[in-house]
Parts: sequence; structure tokens; C-alpha cells
Amino acid sequence: MNEAAKTLDGWYCLHDFRTINWAELKTLSTEERQQIINEFLDLMEKWNDTEAQGEGSHAVYTIVGQKADVMLMILRPSMEELNEIETAFNKSRFAEFTVPAYSYVSVVELSNYMAGDSDDDPYQNPHVRARLYPQLPKAKHVCFYPMDKRRQGDDNWYMLPMDQRRELMKSHGMIGRSYAGKVKQIITGSVGFDDWEWGVTLFADDVLQFKKLVYEMRFDEVSARYGEFGSFFVGNLLTAEGIPSYFYV
Amino acid sequence: MNEAAKTLDGWYCLHDFRTINWAELKTLSTEERQQIINEFLDLMEKWNDTEAQGEGSHAVYTIVGQKADVMLMILRPSMEELNEIETAFNKSRFAEFTVPAYSYVSVVELSNYMAGDSDDDPYQNPHVRARLYPQLPKAKHVCFYPMDKRRQGDDNWYMLPMDQRRELMKSHGMIGRSYAGKVKQIITGSVGFDDWEWGVTLFADDVLQFKKLVYEMRFDEVSARYGEFGSFFVGNLLTAEGIPSYFYV
Amino acid sequence: MNEAAKTLDGWYCLHDFRTINWAELKTLSTEERQQIINEFLDLMEKWNDTEAQGEGSHAVYTIVGQKADVMLMILRPSMEELNEIETAFNKSRFAEFTVPAYSYVSVVELSNYMAGDSDDDPYQNPHVRARLYPQLPKAKHVCFYPMDKRRQGDDNWYMLPMDQRRELMKSHGMIGRSYAGKVKQIITGSVGFDDWEWGVTLFADDVLQFKKLVYEMRFDEVSARYGEFGSFFVGNLLTAEGIPSYFYV
Amino acid sequence: MNEAAKTLDGWYCLHDFRTINWAELKTLSTEERQQIINEFLDLMEKWNDTEAQGEGSHAVYTIVGQKADVMLMILRPSMEELNEIETAFNKSRFAEFTVPAYSYVSVVELSNYMAGDSDDDPYQNPHVRARLYPQLPKAKHVCFYPMDKRRQGDDNWYMLPMDQRRELMKSHGMIGRSYAGKVKQIITGSVGFDDWEWGVTLFADDVLQFKKLVYEMRFDEVSARYGEFGSFFVGNLLTAEGIPSYFYV
Amino acid sequence: MNEAAKTLDGWYCLHDFRTINWAELKTLSTEERQQIINEFLDLMEKWNDTEAQGEGSHAVYTIVGQKADVMLMILRPSMEELNEIETAFNKSRFAEFTVPAYSYVSVVELSNYMAGDSDDDPYQNPHVRARLYPQLPKAKHVCFYPMDKRRQGDDNWYMLPMDQRRELMKSHGMIGRSYAGKVKQIITGSVGFDDWEWGVTLFADDVLQFKKLVYEMRFDEVSARYGEFGSFFVGNLLTAEGIPSYFYV
Repeated sequence: MNEAAKTLDGWYCLHDFRTINWAELKTLSTEERQQIINEFLDLMEKWNDTEAQGEGSHAVYTIVGQKADVMLMILRPSMEELNEIETAFNKSRFAEFTVPAYSYVSVVELSNYMAGDSDDDPYQNPHVRARLYPQLPKAKHVCFYPMDKRRQGDDNWYMLPMDQRRELMKSHGMIGRSYAGKVKQIITGSVGFDDWEWGVTLFADDVLQFKKLVYEMRFDEVSARYGEFGSFFVGNLLTAEGIPSYFYV
Repeated sequence: MNEAAKTLDGWYCLHDFRTINWAELKTLSTEERQQIINEFLDLMEKWNDTEAQGEGSHAVYTIVGQKADVMLMILRPSMEELNEIETAFNKSRFAEFTVPAYSYVSVVELSNYMAGDSDDDPYQNPHVRARLYPQLPKAKHVCFYPMDKRRQGDDNWYMLPMDQRRELMKSHGMIGRSYAGKVKQIITGSVGFDDWEWGVTLFADDVLQFKKLVYEMRFDEVSARYGEFGSFFVGNLLTAEGIPSYFYV
Repeated sequence: MNEAAKTLDGWYCLHDFRTINWAELKTLSTEERQQIINEFLDLMEKWNDTEAQGEGSHAVYTIVGQKADVMLMILRPSMEELNEIETAFNKSRFAEFTVPAYSYVSVVELSNYMAGDSDDDPYQNPHVRARLYPQLPKAKHVCFYPMDKRRQGDDNWYMLPMDQRRELMKSHGMIGRSYAGKVKQIITGSVGFDDWEWGVTLFADDVLQFKKLVYEMRFDEVSARYGEFGSFFVGNLLTAEGIPSYFYV
Repeated sequence: MNEAAKTLDGWYCLHDFRTINWAELKTLSTEERQQIINEFLDLMEKWNDTEAQGEGSHAVYTIVGQKADVMLMILRPSMEELNEIETAFNKSRFAEFTVPAYSYVSVVELSNYMAGDSDDDPYQNPHVRARLYPQLPKAKHVCFYPMDKRRQGDDNWYMLPMDQRRELMKSHGMIGRSYAGKVKQIITGSVGFDDWEWGVTLFADDVLQFKKLVYEMRFDEVSARYGEFGSFFVGNLLTAEGIPSYFYV
Repeated sequence: MNEAAKTLDGWYCLHDFRTINWAELKTLSTEERQQIINEFLDLMEKWNDTEAQGEGSHAVYTIVGQKADVMLMILRPSMEELNEIETAFNKSRFAEFTVPAYSYVSVVELSNYMAGDSDDDPYQNPHVRARLYPQLPKAKHVCFYPMDKRRQGDDNWYMLPMDQRRELMKSHGMIGRSYAGKVKQIITGSVGFDDWEWGVTLFADDVLQFKKLVYEMRFDEVSARYGEFGSFFVGNLLTAEGIPSYFYV
């Protein structure tokens, strides 16, 4: 029998992609529009409070191309909290001017391919905790994509012995590490939660590093033979200061 | 010739996923909105009566992410009753504020891979009956996904001899049993009824157990080589008490 | 060179699946709604006349789940008549309260895998005629799905020699015959007419027999190695008597 | 290195499938509706003039089933002309009562698998010209489908040597020729123009011949191993005389 | 371990495909329509200024068939600028009369399969710069399609050694070069930015050259065994002078 990788699981995560209905937004008076933007800024301020208290984190980016206009990424300790935030957003007036484009439900995950086994409780390890309950960086750019490990004919990741998987992941991880300081990577697991097995969220100040990293990894056997990839979303940081001008029509 | 697995079949099952049209709901007066929520609560009360009389069961959950907002899962003795409940719901005013998101038609199923063969009529066996006509638990979380057994090149489940299938399912079942007390699993068969062959509905108070169970199983040969999976939906219990605040806009 | 199976072809067939727009239907006055239902009943009466004259047949079923609300299955001697019926329906006021959900264009087909070769004109054989120009049964339940024979790597039906195909179809047919009296099967061919190669329409008074039949066949080599299946629709008979209450909102 | 087949290319071709919005059409007064139908008849008359002058051709068919209601097939000497016709149609009032359903962009193509090589300029050969710049027949029925040559594992058409491809196409062509007088076939190439590599348009007075031809070909190695097929559309001739009654609501 | 190809990366690129809502456009008065067209012409003039200053480039084409009506292709030094242009367009009144049809996010790319390695900084090489920061030609026709290198069983591009990939790309490039003067090709890389790995944009005055080039390449091993292709879009140049008549309804 094969041995499943053990995982450490942190905050639950919702990626929520929306398209703006600009035509509708233009039908509003300046006051109404301002009210709606304020409503959204209020939501963000609440999220900032939660983040300041170390009880979650979030990121807001605009997305390039027609797939979506904005991405909200929300981290919280429970699935219920994600649901409450999503529902509160959906009930807001602001949401009336957005159209759902894509979403992803997952949980921050560390796998034991990387981490050494140890007798200590990893959930007490501050380095581990910092990765399971991360403060999302305010990098200039974001890249999100979901992925699977392939199960196809001779290329079946889940039929490989643990040792071989660990070896392959090690080489994979070394590529990742060579981008340290340039790309910050958050892996969230979604087996049982959403249609793909993992979500990958990358943060960088130089958007070209996303391409370099993903392309280099694609030649690595883990991706080349065993990776299946969903849609890629790329975008730019939307700060609270940038919101009024972004939504000005 | 290959031998088909025998199945025991219980209540028919409809999973009905809906998205809420919050913007429309907001156009109602408080009284109208209350009326509509009452209409839905009345439906649920009728379903509770049926459940109390042992003539069916149901579950209502909110769903995280954009795939749907709520899931209704309905068990009934006949396909006609499912259809009537669905139509009654569709005719309700409440339904006007929902958009169909996904549905699944199936029947509670036990396979003889698990059950030993015996001379007694299994439909008279109280343990079997409890599984064929189950009261759905009021667990905090639900996970639903449809699945197929693969028929692809050398990975063709339906070409395996019965003994090998039974052996593989046994190891699979052992993983499932190791989650006893943590995850309650309802398997519904949908061959001839819907696009996938089975629906899997999991109930748990700790949502992370869904991920652990499904991930562990994925390394098991039955899933690794022979499983094909559809969309995953994950959600939180919506109680009658929680409904007014959930629908308050 | 491979030998194509010969087919006998009977009436042309349109499966027309529709979703009901209940919200719109509710905006009508009782009189208007009654008028619209009468319009549909008049269409059905015309179809009944055609059926009584042996110049076609039809079936009307409600469908369980969100894929559709009703299915019309129409058999006629020519493609033009199908088109006329479809267009007449589309122009009716009734149609304004329906949304197209799925359709299938095919022709009733018997293949010579089953039928022995004979010198006589099979189109004069009354047994053959009864199958090519069938009166659709008024069974309680219907099951429809389209399918292909697979052409994939080593599993390529169309590369098999005729003798092997005939042998495989024989075993397949024996399963079908074991359901005689329980399930009535109409095979319609759609090569050159629609996206799949065949449509399978099953009729039964016990809906569970659909599952048993399709599941048992799936272990048969013809389906296990060579079958590709589309969407499955399952439903309940909608009689003229049942229509007023079905459409009452 | 492999040798690409040479092609002769004739008129550019647009297949334009539309669904009629009957409900909207009914909101018009008889005069308005007549005006709109006249507008469409005027367009067709212009197309007839072009056809009479040998500067293009066209065909108008109704389509059976929900995929579309009507198909326009337009042949013209340049891509610009196709675009102008499409845009003129889109700007017409008639178009307001149609919904785009599917389209296909291609060019009439003859391949050198069939044609012998010769020193003469084939574009001066009247037989070749008649096939590159064809007058579309007014047959009772049409069948359209797009297709690819497969590139999958051992079934990779584009890796076969020229001789083998020519041999395979020859046997394929012989099936086609056996339908001479029953089915008229127009092959249009779409590599670089649309999502599939070829469009196949068949014309016949007996609609059943489409099924017989396509089914027989499917057992031929070219289709069995190397054919990938898109959606099939089947329909009936819509003459200028038939248009007023077709659009009468 | 495999060696990833090195790339040189130039301007960021947005392909933005839109469908025109002609029915809505007709509801406008002549003055309003003119105003809206002027708004679009003003946008184009700003883009012309940027192009004149060598800080970007753009192309505007109409698209044949129902996939889209117009394509905007925009090159800029940063992802932020692309996003700003897209958002400015979305906020314009003109955009209210368009529906998003497809978009593609990428960056102009040269790979080292082609370029020899050298000690000099290629970004200072004027020939390289001309290709990384190109002025898009005003050719009569455009062809766009996205593509992947295949990773499937034995046909896995990313598992090939660098030498073999270079050899294959060389033969591929020779086909491309044989179309020099007839077809201008811009390759943009989208790994990490969009769903496919590359976008290919071809420009030609003779639209048939697209078909010839893409078809010839398909017989080349790189495409035959290792190419996966998305949707193809083909269109005609839309000049500023042509815009008023194109949008006249």
C-alpha cells in the first residue's frame, strides 16, 4: 500500500474573483458611487483589523484580461468565517456591481515532503506557524493557478512510492528556493474542498519572475510528467488608496 | 464474462445546489422577504415531518465559494417524490430568488464488495436498512462530489475480475473505517440516473477531516488508478434557526 | 478494409428537453395560464392523432434535477416533420415559458449485428416494422443518454473485425434481453445527425431497472472497453391528465 | 522530415448558425415583421445576384434541434467580403431577432492526395475551378461538421509518411465516390482560420444518406484511427418562397 | 535534470477580443453614436502617440465569424499599463456596446533555441530589441492562436533533452523563415500569465498564407507530436479611417 503524504494545515482560504459591471456603476450618482466604494473600504478596514490581530490575512489585486477584474484572497481560521465574509460581501451594495468570475476554496498547507519528521509538535514551531498562518505580502503583483498531480497511464503520481515522490519534490523545491526574495509562494490544499488538488498563489514585485519560475519548473519532472494546471490569473496590487481612482467612472 | 457487482438500493436522492440572487432579494420589503423565508421554513417543516415519520430525510447547507450558495439534499422512497419536491420548490416564491447551480440524481447504494453474501434478505436486516434509509446527520460540515470508476487503457476498472475489485475495495474501505466517528459517508449510485456513476456525500464536524480522508484515499490504488472525480462542494450547516439571519439583507 | 455494420432505419426522432420558467408563468393571470396549457394540450392532441394513425409516436416526461424540467420525444417519418413540430412548438406561447436545455436528433435504428441476414426485404417484416416504427410505451419512467463507440489507442471499436464486433454485441444483447418485460429499449442512430453516435431511450415502470441494466452492461466488454457515454436524463411520465396540475403555479 | 500535403484553395467560406428569438418576433406588428423578413429577402436577393455573376455562392437551411434554427453558408473570393456580409447581417434589423449559435471560417479546399500532380496550372483547369468555386446545390438537406486529423500516441496522422497518407485517403475517397449522385460534398480547410482543421458540408435529397456515408467512413482507417469530429448539424432547405411562412408567428 | 530554455522578454501584451452589441448601438441617436466612436478614436490616437514615441504598439482588427467582432492587441512596457488601458477601455461609453469574448495576457518572447549564446547583453542588441519591442505591422490580415507544448505519455516536450528540443525547433524555424516577407510572426510567452503557454500572432497581406504556414508546420514533428492548439481567430485590418463606416448602423 502506498503512503500518503502528511500535511500540516493552517488557515482556510477563499480566492474570490469578480468582474466589475462598469456600465451599471456609471448609472449611479457620484454620492451613491462614493457610498458604495466606502462600503467596500469599510469591509477592507474590518479585514485589516483582523489581520492586525493576527486572526487572518487578505490581499486585493486587479486582474489583467477578461477573466476577472479583481481578486480577493481571504485567509481565516475556519470555513465558517470564510463563508460569513463571502456572504457579507454578496449582500453588500458593492457586490451588486460585480459578477462572480471564479472562486477557489482551500487551506494553507505544508507537506512533509519538505519538512523533516520530528518528535516536536510542528504546530508549536514558530517557523511553521509563520507559514501556516501567513501575513500576505503587499507585493506589486499576484499570480494564481490551481493544479493537480497527474494520474494518467504511466504518469501516475499517486502510484509512486513515497521515496520517489520525496526525491522529486526535493528537486522541485530547490527551483522554488532559487527564487527566494523574488517570489513568495503560498500553497493551499483543496483536496475535498474544490475541483483541483492545490492552489498556488505567487507574489512578486517583478511580474516577469512568475513566468521564469513557472517555466523553469515545467522542465522539472514533477511538473513535466506529473503536473496538470488550471487557469492562470495575473494581476496588480490594488491598495486602499488606489481604490477610489480605480472605481472612478 | 465479467461479473457486475450487486447493489442494494435504498432511498432516492436529489442534491440541489442553488445560488442566491441577493440583489433581487434586497428589492423586497421586509414583510415580503419574511414571507418568502417563511415559505422556505414551511417547506423545511414538511420535510422535518417526513423525516420524523421515517419516510425520508434531508440536509440543508450553505456552500463556500461561487459554485453555489446553498445545497438541499433530499432522500425519498421514490423518484416521483423527488420530482414533486423539486417542482414544489421551483414553484415557490423563494425559488425566484435562487438560480440553479448544479444538481445530482441518485439512489442510496450499498455494494456487495463490502457486504458478505448471505441467504437472508438483506432488506430485512436492520443494520442494512439503517444504511439504505439513513437519517442524515446534522454535522457542521458537508462535502459532496460525484465520481466514476476509470475505463482508460490499462486502467479499466470494469475489465478487472470480481476478486480483484473486491480486494481493492476492501483496502479502500479500511481507510474509510479509520475515519469512523469523524466522517459519516453516504454513497449514492447514479448509473443510469446522472452523468457520473456515484455521488459521495461526507458529513463531519471538523471540515479538515474531508481533506485528510479524500487525500489519503487518493494514494490508494482504487482512487489512484481507477478514480475519476467531478466537482467538489464544501459547506456549513444551515439550521432552521440560522435561516432568518442568513437571508437577512 | 473493415466492414461497416448495416443498419435498418425507421422513424426520425427528436428528443427535446426544456426548462420551465416558473417565475414568468406566475406573472400570468389564471385565464392566460389556462390558455397556454390548452395550447400545449392541443399540440399533444394533434400528436395523439398522428400516433393513432400510425404515422408517428411521442412521449412526454418530466425530468428530475436541474438539467431540464420536461422531455418531449417525437418520432416522425421525415426530418422535415420533426423540424415543423419543433418550429410549431417554438412559435407557441407555451414555448415562451420554456428555455431550451438539450436536444437530440436521430433515427430509429436496428443493426445487423442482431438481425440475421436474409434474402427477404426486412422492411416488409412486421416484427422489424414494429421496431422501426414503434409506438412509444406509456411507462412510468424514462431514461435517455447518448453514446459513442470508443476509438482510443488499443480500444478502437471501428478497427475491430466484423466477427469480433458481432460476438461482442451478442453478449451485450443477451444482457438487454434478460431485462425483457422490465425495460423497453429504443436505439436511435445519430451518426451524421448529432454529436454522439447513438441515443438510448429506456422505458420502465420500475426506475431502478435503469440503474441495474446500465450498471450490468458496464461490466460487459462492449461498454467497459468501447463505450463512451454522454449526459443521463431520468424522468417520470407526464400524462395529459397530469399536465394541468403540473403547470399550476 | 515529413511532407505536407499541397492544397488548392478556392472561395472563402462562412458557416453562420443562428437561433431565432421567436418570443421577440411575436412582439412585432405584422407590418414590422414583414419589413424585417423583406430585409432578409433583400439580402438573399443580393446574394443571388452575386451567385448569378459567378462571384460567390450561398445556401440557407433550417437546422433540426436546439443547436440552431437557421444556417447561412456563404462563399466569397475574399475574407473581407465574408466579413462585410457578416457585418451587414449583424447590423440588419432581422439580426436583432437572432442569437449567434455557432460559426465556422474556412476556404474551399482540394488536396493533392486526390489530384494527380501535373505540370499544368490546376487553377486554369475547368474541372478544378468548378470544385474550388462551386455553386452550392439546392438539395433538400444539409449536414455540416468540423473535423481534425488525430495526433494522439500511435495514432498521429501528421507523423505518417506521405505515401501512407495518400493510400489511406484513396480508400477514403472511394467510399465518398460510391455516394456520387446521392451526396454532394464540399470540403473547406480551416487550419489557421478556425478551431478545427476542416469543415465538411454535405448536401443530399435523402437525409439518410448522410448517416450511411458518415457511418461507413467511420469504419475506414482514416476516420477510425485518425478522425476527430466536432458537432454535427443537420437541416432542411429554406427557400426564398418558404421564408415568409417559416417566419410567420 | 532537464534544462529550461532561456527566454528574452520584451513588452507585455494584451489581446482583447470583443463582440459588438449592434442592437444596442442602434438605439443611440446619430450624435451619441458619433460621440462614442470619437471616444474610441481618441483612445486610438493616444495609443498612436505612445507608438510614435516607441513606448508601445497596438493593432486593431475585425474578426470573421461569431467568436468576436474586433480584436485589440496592445503592447506596453509593464503589466500595470496593460491593466490601465484595459480598465480605461472598460470604463469608456464605447465599451458599453461591446461584450468581452476572449482575452490573452502574455509578453513578447524570444527563446534561446534560436538565438545563439553570446557574451554580449542581448537586450542591447538592436536586432533583438526590434523583435522584443516591435512596431506591429499594419498588414491586411491577422491570425491569433494560443498553444502549448504537449506533455502526454511518450510525447512529452518538457522531458526531452535540450539538444533534441533545439534540433526540433531549428527545423520548425526553417519553415517559418521560408514565409519571410509573406507572414510576420510575433511570439508572446504566457507561462504564469494565462492558460496556454504561448500566443502566436501572425500578420499577412494574403490571408491564405496563414493556412499554408500553419498547415505546413503541422507536419513538422514539433507541432505534429508536441503541439496543442487553442482557438484560432482570423481577421481584417480596421483602420482609423474605416472605423466610422464599420460602426455606422
